[in-house]
Amino acid sequence: MGKISDSAVRRLTLCLRHLEEFEAHGVETVSSGELARRGGGTPAQVRKDLSLFGSFGTRGRGYSVPRLAVRLREILGLSRPRRLALVGAGRLGSALFAYEGLRRRGFLIVAVLDCDPGKVGQRRGGLRIRAVSELERVLREEAVEIMVVAVPPEEVQGLVDRAVRAGVRGILNFAPTRARVPPHVVLKDVDLILELEALTYAMMRQARA
Amino acid sequence: MGKISDSAVRRLTLCLRHLEEFEAHGVETVSSGELARRGGGTPAQVRKDLSLFGSFGTRGRGYSVPRLAVRLREILGLSRPRRLALVGAGRLGSALFAYEGLRRRGFLIVAVLDCDPGKVGQRRGGLRIRAVSELERVLREEAVEIMVVAVPPEEVQGLVDRAVRAGVRGILNFAPTRARVPPHVVLKDVDLILELEALTYAMMRQARA
Repeated sequence: MGKISDSAVRRLTLCLRHLEEFEAHGVETVSSGELARRGGGTPAQVRKDLSLFGSFGTRGRGYSVPRLAVRLREILGLSRPRRLALVGAGRLGSALFAYEGLRRRGFLIVAVLDCDPGKVGQRRGGLRIRAVSELERVLREEAVEIMVVAVPPEEVQGLVDRAVRAGVRGILNFAPTRARVPPHVVLKDVDLILELEALTYAMMRQARA
Repeated sequence: MGKISDSAVRRLTLCLRHLEEFEAHGVETVSSGELARRGGGTPAQVRKDLSLFGSFGTRGRGYSVPRLAVRLREILGLSRPRRLALVGAGRLGSALFAYEGLRRRGFLIVAVLDCDPGKVGQRRGGLRIRAVSELERVLREEAVEIMVVAVPPEEVQGLVDRAVRAGVRGILNFAPTRARVPPHVVLKDVDLILELEALTYAMMRQARA
């Protein structure tokens, strides 16, 4: 199986969500047309994306919802929960922590850390906020796979370096800065300003079109 | 000038940030090598991206920082501030509102709305929270160009439809749902779960590589 493009991963992930909704409603089979309608693509695109991983459909009968859901979870690496640490218990961090969708989708926040001594020891949900000075220990003890970073930009690279040394292999960064990681570590940035800037550019293009 | 790809827009936006840092430090010229080093690309890529918009560099002397910054702002539609309304004054909305980078980058939150009567009338920064029932009026009175949506998924499509009818042409959606907009409106989703799922997939690929 070759590398799937970022946009195909996104489509498959959305497809999985729709399948899970169908499952929740007891729907057993679904056509590529229905999946496309929900996902905003074309039926041909859906069939092409899914055909990358084998054959799930029966012509004229559609796809088996439970079989396809199981297979997509395997393909996307979502068949087991992932353990996350959240660094930064400020406004954004607290919003992320309170986001109920995370746990439901298998992303478990198992540790919260902050460098503010006033916050350390406070509780967020069932977790006691730990000091960032304990980062390496917390990451190891809690078997953290993904670190979510919601701290000021100037603190990001230092935290990332420490997490990488402690064995973390995935980082989601909300600070408006680019951090460097070695090739075996995956880092993704969620940069609000960059999204707004791309939106502005697209709006300007539309206005001229 | 043709359409620029999403990834080129991102690179140019990051390039503009670096130019602004150089400007702030009084640096007058910069080489494609320096821009590439900061941006994480190659010098050839930087030269190619920039050459899409004309010639700014002098061989051997590099690019004029202020000229290139002005031109990039024009290209990206960032030469004037944009007026934003934030719908949803919950945890995430409040985190977004408090994000100081927004104003500095020319994104002005000029209105905050919520449907919770307990919140309406409270203040966020200098703004009084308005009722979502007043959405259309607020959007028009405040000449809002971009609506930022931080509400539960089931409320998104209704709000989007109302904003579109009121003339809003750009929407940034933080709820984990896809809303439909007519072709003259641009909608972008910032979907935390989707980012985590894409990260997980990339980590799994790395582990196998």
